[in-house]
Amino acid sequence: MTPRIDFWFDFGSNYSYLSVMRLEQAASARGITVQWKPFLLGPVFQALGFTGAPFVVQPIKGAYVWQDMRRQCARFGLPAWQMPSRFPRGSTLPARVALLGAEQPWIGAFCRRVMTLNFVDDQEIDNPEAMGRVLLELGLPADELLSAAVSDANRPRLREQTAQAQALGIFGAPTFLVGDEMFWGNDRLEEALDWAAAPGAAA
Amino acid sequence: MTPRIDFWFDFGSNYSYLSVMRLEQAASARGITVQWKPFLLGPVFQALGFTGAPFVVQPIKGAYVWQDMRRQCARFGLPAWQMPSRFPRGSTLPARVALLGAEQPWIGAFCRRVMTLNFVDDQEIDNPEAMGRVLLELGLPADELLSAAVSDANRPRLREQTAQAQALGIFGAPTFLVGDEMFWGNDRLEEALDWAAAPGAAA
Repeated sequence: MTPRIDFWFDFGSNYSYLSVMRLEQAASARGITVQWKPFLLGPVFQALGFTGAPFVVQPIKGAYVWQDMRRQCARFGLPAWQMPSRFPRGSTLPARVALLGAEQPWIGAFCRRVMTLNFVDDQEIDNPEAMGRVLLELGLPADELLSAAVSDANRPRLREQTAQAQALGIFGAPTFLVGDEMFWGNDRLEEALDWAAAPGAAA
Repeated sequence: MTPRIDFWFDFGSNYSYLSVMRLEQAASARGITVQWKPFLLGPVFQALGFTGAPFVVQPIKGAYVWQDMRRQCARFGLPAWQMPSRFPRGSTLPARVALLGAEQPWIGAFCRRVMTLNFVDDQEIDNPEAMGRVLLELGLPADELLSAAVSDANRPRLREQTAQAQALGIFGAPTFLVGDEMFWGNDRLEEALDWAAAPGAAA
């Protein structure tokens, strides 16, 4: 059986950005399959009683986080960090497209391009123009996919996936699940892969 | 000039436990001096608007944290994690003693013993009996040190140190400071040491 990791993320989340850029290559090098699980952090934070994104609601923590992001981007060889002019950005449409593509070979490339738009190019991501361009660049039928993304069949799926995240006890992103074992944060990406390769080996 | 790291911690904090047990050896191996900075998280959390320790106030996050602690203890070769019967434990008296000893050769051993009491032996730490035993085990004049810890000269120092933590933008523990560069969490211990050894090398 191929080891598998469930990867729960939000395109608006800066620490999800770090994992989206790194995960596919790291998992593939170890023969681990990634199950991409886009969801929306907004309703999750709301249910936890936050009035907004924690790094915005707690400016003292936010100030630290941007300092940390600068170092983490350097550490992982990502483009130099610059604070997005809007944070967090809405991420509903890209999440809906990612839900459609979760089992497709283009999912990893799509997610990395959306994250690059948000966190490197400082562009909005929650609109059909931006997402259409990303899909076309990947050689995909953009119009068809965008229609499917906002169709009556697909729209409820994002709500359901977000509800499933909450049911699983997910309280932030990125979150990795290997069976029932939860790993929270980009800092746990390597541990989660270790666990997927050899469950419980370290504990 | 010897590289130096300022280590801000609270004896009641479980992630501080992981760093207290590891830091002195890791820093000493790289010729880095540790400046021990005990403080109280309670007033810091209160100023941030929390009604208590975040892992208690947010039980869904707490549930994850205990799972994470099990794995982190295994990873660092610490005794098997067991949830303390009281969390977080009061830590005022050990912090006052640690303030007295911050420049003394026994500070590392003292802090490790207090943390072991709290997180391995599941014992209270905020009382003169427990702290007296720890000091005696280290061959120190327990009565004298305990009197000095609660003296009028020493009591305000813990308030001042906690206020200084807040002034520095510290919002949790453990926090490492290398000059102005802040590193939050046991997950950043190695990065903080890297920075102390060669400031800015990675960024």
